[in-house]
Amino acid sequence: MQRPAETTKPALGVGMVGYAFMGAAHSQGWRTVGRVFDLPLRPAMAAICGRDPDAVRAAAEKHGWAAAETDWRALIARDDVQLVDICTPGDSHAEIAIAALEAGKHVLCEKPLANSVAEAEAMVEAARRARERGQIAMVGFNYRRTPAIAHARRMVRDGRLGVLRHVRVSYLQDWIVDPEFPLVWRLRREHAGSGALGDLGAHIVDLAQYLAGEPLVGVSALTETFVRERPLPAGTATTGLGGQAGGAARGPVTVDDAALFSGRMASGALASFEATRFAAGRKNALRIELNGERGSLAFDLERLNELHFHDHTEPATDAGFRRILVTEPEHPYLEAWWPAGHALGYEHTFVHQARDLVLAIDARTEPEPSFADGLQVQRVLAAVEESAEKNCVYTPVPA
Amino acid sequence: MQRPAETTKPALGVGMVGYAFMGAAHSQGWRTVGRVFDLPLRPAMAAICGRDPDAVRAAAEKHGWAAAETDWRALIARDDVQLVDICTPGDSHAEIAIAALEAGKHVLCEKPLANSVAEAEAMVEAARRARERGQIAMVGFNYRRTPAIAHARRMVRDGRLGVLRHVRVSYLQDWIVDPEFPLVWRLRREHAGSGALGDLGAHIVDLAQYLAGEPLVGVSALTETFVRERPLPAGTATTGLGGQAGGAARGPVTVDDAALFSGRMASGALASFEATRFAAGRKNALRIELNGERGSLAFDLERLNELHFHDHTEPATDAGFRRILVTEPEHPYLEAWWPAGHALGYEHTFVHQARDLVLAIDARTEPEPSFADGLQVQRVLAAVEESAEKNCVYTPVPA
Amino acid sequence: MQRPAETTKPALGVGMVGYAFMGAAHSQGWRTVGRVFDLPLRPAMAAICGRDPDAVRAAAEKHGWAAAETDWRALIARDDVQLVDICTPGDSHAEIAIAALEAGKHVLCEKPLANSVAEAEAMVEAARRARERGQIAMVGFNYRRTPAIAHARRMVRDGRLGVLRHVRVSYLQDWIVDPEFPLVWRLRREHAGSGALGDLGAHIVDLAQYLAGEPLVGVSALTETFVRERPLPAGTATTGLGGQAGGAARGPVTVDDAALFSGRMASGALASFEATRFAAGRKNALRIELNGERGSLAFDLERLNELHFHDHTEPATDAGFRRILVTEPEHPYLEAWWPAGHALGYEHTFVHQARDLVLAIDARTEPEPSFADGLQVQRVLAAVEESAEKNCVYTPVPA
Amino acid sequence: MQRPAETTKPALGVGMVGYAFMGAAHSQGWRTVGRVFDLPLRPAMAAICGRDPDAVRAAAEKHGWAAAETDWRALIARDDVQLVDICTPGDSHAEIAIAALEAGKHVLCEKPLANSVAEAEAMVEAARRARERGQIAMVGFNYRRTPAIAHARRMVRDGRLGVLRHVRVSYLQDWIVDPEFPLVWRLRREHAGSGALGDLGAHIVDLAQYLAGEPLVGVSALTETFVRERPLPAGTATTGLGGQAGGAARGPVTVDDAALFSGRMASGALASFEATRFAAGRKNALRIELNGERGSLAFDLERLNELHFHDHTEPATDAGFRRILVTEPEHPYLEAWWPAGHALGYEHTFVHQARDLVLAIDARTEPEPSFADGLQVQRVLAAVEESAEKNCVYTPVPA
Repeated sequence: MQRPAETTKPALGVGMVGYAFMGAAHSQGWRTVGRVFDLPLRPAMAAICGRDPDAVRAAAEKHGWAAAETDWRALIARDDVQLVDICTPGDSHAEIAIAALEAGKHVLCEKPLANSVAEAEAMVEAARRARERGQIAMVGFNYRRTPAIAHARRMVRDGRLGVLRHVRVSYLQDWIVDPEFPLVWRLRREHAGSGALGDLGAHIVDLAQYLAGEPLVGVSALTETFVRERPLPAGTATTGLGGQAGGAARGPVTVDDAALFSGRMASGALASFEATRFAAGRKNALRIELNGERGSLAFDLERLNELHFHDHTEPATDAGFRRILVTEPEHPYLEAWWPAGHALGYEHTFVHQARDLVLAIDARTEPEPSFADGLQVQRVLAAVEESAEKNCVYTPVPA
Repeated sequence: MQRPAETTKPALGVGMVGYAFMGAAHSQGWRTVGRVFDLPLRPAMAAICGRDPDAVRAAAEKHGWAAAETDWRALIARDDVQLVDICTPGDSHAEIAIAALEAGKHVLCEKPLANSVAEAEAMVEAARRARERGQIAMVGFNYRRTPAIAHARRMVRDGRLGVLRHVRVSYLQDWIVDPEFPLVWRLRREHAGSGALGDLGAHIVDLAQYLAGEPLVGVSALTETFVRERPLPAGTATTGLGGQAGGAARGPVTVDDAALFSGRMASGALASFEATRFAAGRKNALRIELNGERGSLAFDLERLNELHFHDHTEPATDAGFRRILVTEPEHPYLEAWWPAGHALGYEHTFVHQARDLVLAIDARTEPEPSFADGLQVQRVLAAVEESAEKNCVYTPVPA
Repeated sequence: MQRPAETTKPALGVGMVGYAFMGAAHSQGWRTVGRVFDLPLRPAMAAICGRDPDAVRAAAEKHGWAAAETDWRALIARDDVQLVDICTPGDSHAEIAIAALEAGKHVLCEKPLANSVAEAEAMVEAARRARERGQIAMVGFNYRRTPAIAHARRMVRDGRLGVLRHVRVSYLQDWIVDPEFPLVWRLRREHAGSGALGDLGAHIVDLAQYLAGEPLVGVSALTETFVRERPLPAGTATTGLGGQAGGAARGPVTVDDAALFSGRMASGALASFEATRFAAGRKNALRIELNGERGSLAFDLERLNELHFHDHTEPATDAGFRRILVTEPEHPYLEAWWPAGHALGYEHTFVHQARDLVLAIDARTEPEPSFADGLQVQRVLAAVEESAEKNCVYTPVPA
Repeated sequence: MQRPAETTKPALGVGMVGYAFMGAAHSQGWRTVGRVFDLPLRPAMAAICGRDPDAVRAAAEKHGWAAAETDWRALIARDDVQLVDICTPGDSHAEIAIAALEAGKHVLCEKPLANSVAEAEAMVEAARRARERGQIAMVGFNYRRTPAIAHARRMVRDGRLGVLRHVRVSYLQDWIVDPEFPLVWRLRREHAGSGALGDLGAHIVDLAQYLAGEPLVGVSALTETFVRERPLPAGTATTGLGGQAGGAARGPVTVDDAALFSGRMASGALASFEATRFAAGRKNALRIELNGERGSLAFDLERLNELHFHDHTEPATDAGFRRILVTEPEHPYLEAWWPAGHALGYEHTFVHQARDLVLAIDARTEPEPSFADGLQVQRVLAAVEESAEKNCVYTPVPA
């Protein structure tokens, strides 16, 4: 029998910048999304970009990209690239994203949107102009695409929680508990912008606002750097979490190890946040709880297929937090996957993100989360840093 | 066969003030402690005191007290009372405790020690003078006597956590989520001093400091009263959590519904606290987690027989939070109870508290937690209120 | 003020035989029940009986019994004893219970009712005759009195599960995993009747039938004794689980270490059972799950304040096992205890058992579980042993 | 920059038969494995085969197969196919697998290996002959490739459990609880061979023997069909779990709805099994517990990234089941995936299965699980059916 007829779907050429952890995750997303979801466009993995020629060529072959580039400007200039996917550290986001938008490309930018509010504002402005030309700009808060989170959002929107009283979020990791863990790029302000705050805090601020459906209006914050100096990595340490400590040389840690902040949502609900890389035994414990007058929701990323819901309108004798296994065909994104009860994993959030972006590009609808959403998160992070510097004083988040 | 020989143990006459929820719990403690533990003194339930003659007489009969009094001064004056156990709302603690101490009695005082720092300071001074006369004064932070908490304290003391990085504590309840729940005494500042802060926050501040083995040195805080006005209770509402809403009359809620605060421990560890009565579905969720360089501990009062421990010195492939069922005969207090695996409950903390107090009285050792410990908690609560009033600014806790 | 007026409630004199683990637990029940529940009769702890004069006198004093006896016939003969509470090993149950019933006393007999079906049948006959004289005979399946179990029974009775399909029960302990644990009385057939089967299996057979509301009609079984010989205890080992291994002498283990059996309920539901003392790490893991067409229930004695319920009539997207904290005032037995969220423990089952028995004696209603219920369990255990001897063949349980 | 150099790795052409649920899962495995793992051969998705020309062509395009065939003999005959991956119902496994082996192809065959022992024996014989020619034949017990299961096997092999006492396994689903769910192919003996037994029981028998490292030597079993008649599906119902009920026509369910069996392992350990599709609320609850003299392990497929381990050699006060998050780089298969704490899902088992098969083909090592392992499972299932027919009598499993 013959080869299946070539699909007649139009292609959407993707060019990706960066090929470390996020690059691998996004690659898995692009490789899979068209095979699982029925999309109006066919994502084509056109080219990948990185500075080291050998490494980027190896990454292209490994992850399935058709071509490799060493200059992101060349990537943007390619005719076969309609969408630029930015997976680099935060210090380069603004420059690449703005250039890509100005070149007429759609953009997906990893979180946090930028390392400063000023950069994020410039990106939003570029996205606004591009939007008028029909381009889409999305920021990569991938956890919104966890089916349990997406289902939780639906439940909040449907009024299952009633008036919101509390949002309680923490993101606990432990990968730098050891003081001898080396000084990788994520621990240096010039590359990462901030530490646990920008890396983990950005996720939980976005999720809190997304799930609540309302912004934070002010915060009070404490931050801390427990280990002020660490061994320098053996070689270059710009491409991942890892890196071997190399010899006696040490350098200063210039970002926060942990950030605690509390605040008020627009509705008057209280919110508490904790982001840390020093919670021994907690590997990826992004935990969220929302309490409302009619019910509560709870989630833990370490058990990402589960959502816990308490219906406070039920008789007290029969009420309690129920563990919803978010794997039913009717749950968000699940129609494309396996029968009920078969777990998804972390990387599926990138497949779902790719799906939602492709749909938005095709329908020319406003993407979610937009660069404006990313800017709002950036403003919260800036308010957190300001409060931490000003003796924790309550600091409004500009609207 | 004849009646068992009367014990030759000297009696310790107990007089209790108050007979609501705490009175019932303390009664169960006094009734049970000598039957389960082998004590040097025989606690005798000499007299109970309350303002309503009929009610206090009924309480005496129900709970097994030999006599009833309507004036706490008369109770203190009784020759058969050597220990005064104060279970009233916080506004009367200082007066009763100081009078009892001055009358030469030992004192057990429910938490919070007082409704203000000034009262607590006076109580500490009275306890100091009484101590010179050999009297014991203890404050009733009963959760220290949960076997899992006591075992956790041992593990921290033994260095199982190493350098402490985080203390994370919350106490979540939901009994006033309904805006029509009536304005009981616990919601009125003149009786309760504060709301969730004094009731729940006092417990978690004490536990955080106890488990860490070090004090909080400063805090930043947010408080909130979500429901500002509630129906007045039908009758008197001074005797418990309960009360039926009665008619259209409403009154102002004059305490906090929720309090969020963060701070620094003396060692530099970060601490976060949340106390609320608005967490729908959380009934008695006092949760504690401590993260150190060598390990972590976690506890939830809703599963009070369990302690979770992560040993960070183990190989990562085999490490994880282990659920220790704290029911082994070698665990604190367990030698007196049931075989391994048989759960204890809430009220056992009062039995254990009675045991520790009787042992301290007999041995004339310093009781723990002392009135000074109670004062320290009071100072933290005062700093929390000050910070909340001053726009969350970081507020030192006086040493 | 004067002593509270003596209660005018009629007394119910209790005489207890045995003072080991079960004796202590029953004592705590009798000591507490009248203080917590409002009963029509006042239980009086009249006398306790044991063979060793010094030991029984010490037990009387420790546990609060007014008198001590060394001959159970003398105990039964006492005028101040109206209820005989039998806490001895199973080999003496029949003789004592029948004598007590014939002497006109009410009887509470620890489980298993007897060591053989024949004994149990004689006890049922004695109870039947006594019932005509207004006496009450109850068997001590205390776990029925766990609030979560009692609430589960209500839910099944209310039809929340619909047609029953599966009952899945296991009772896992680990106290004899060590082959050097000594040969205590519970490991000797002449005293204990059987091993895990009678000790643990009796509980789970009773609970399965109680919760389902229907009997097992047949079983297929496997039993095993993993460790066939153990060191003899140092001294007498008749008074508890414990005992120190003493020297080189060894004796044969003559009971089962573990029993696995499956069967059919009267309705056609399938049931599976496992009782073992060799499940390392499981201390008291009595687990039950029932699956019906409309819902499911799950329980674990190691978390005895919780009941898990899945409502299969809800939309699949929002359904899941909910954790009901069975501590609401409206839950069975809870009206007498603490506010919502405050945990009860193992020993409360004995307080509740005492309450239900006192109420049955006062109202002269049929007690539950009756001796006939105990006999039915005994018949199941006998069928299990018969099946295990006959190569697992399916063995009917006589009606 | 130019396209990355074509890889020089030799290709391994894969031809897959079947494109329903298992076909989709295997496709995801083949599509991903070479992108994530560094393999010596490059899997090429050469052709897919199904009976319906349009459907198979659509499946080829959707899942990324280069060609489509409608006759499995044609698929086997293709020069670009070196490995035949069989994802059809069990009734066709033997014919296809034997033909493929005789044609010189490697074979991966979904579980259960066959619908009868005779078929399975013929397949093992074919595999034995093929092995002499250097061909590999593997059976698809994919759950062995869950990292937690693979890690558990390592721990057992390393002696962490000591002498094994208990294996306790259940596989609970609920997709046919509704009596109106239609009569799909999985409910008809002629296609599926058996019901819950072959579908779910095969998995848990394989896992029990794999983890224990020893075979079952005999079983006693009960099976049941709760709902004996169901509506016929609207159209053809051969391609999945699903199917819409169509009209009034009904047909008999000819397989078991549930199977309970117990048995003995070669070492004398006891094992219990339950497979059911009638456990309301349990979606994919494959649960395993092993208890040994030195420790215990527990696993639940609904939380597949976790393994629970109790180390019984630790002091009792600090011991308990620890939750190991099996996402460390050092855990099996994890070196190729994400940083610690990032969850994998169900489909990753197929990626890992593909990896292990490719490695075995390249190294010409004995694959695991082999067809002989599949035959052994088949013999257990046959013994289960024989015991169930013979009144549960204990039935040896032939070696």
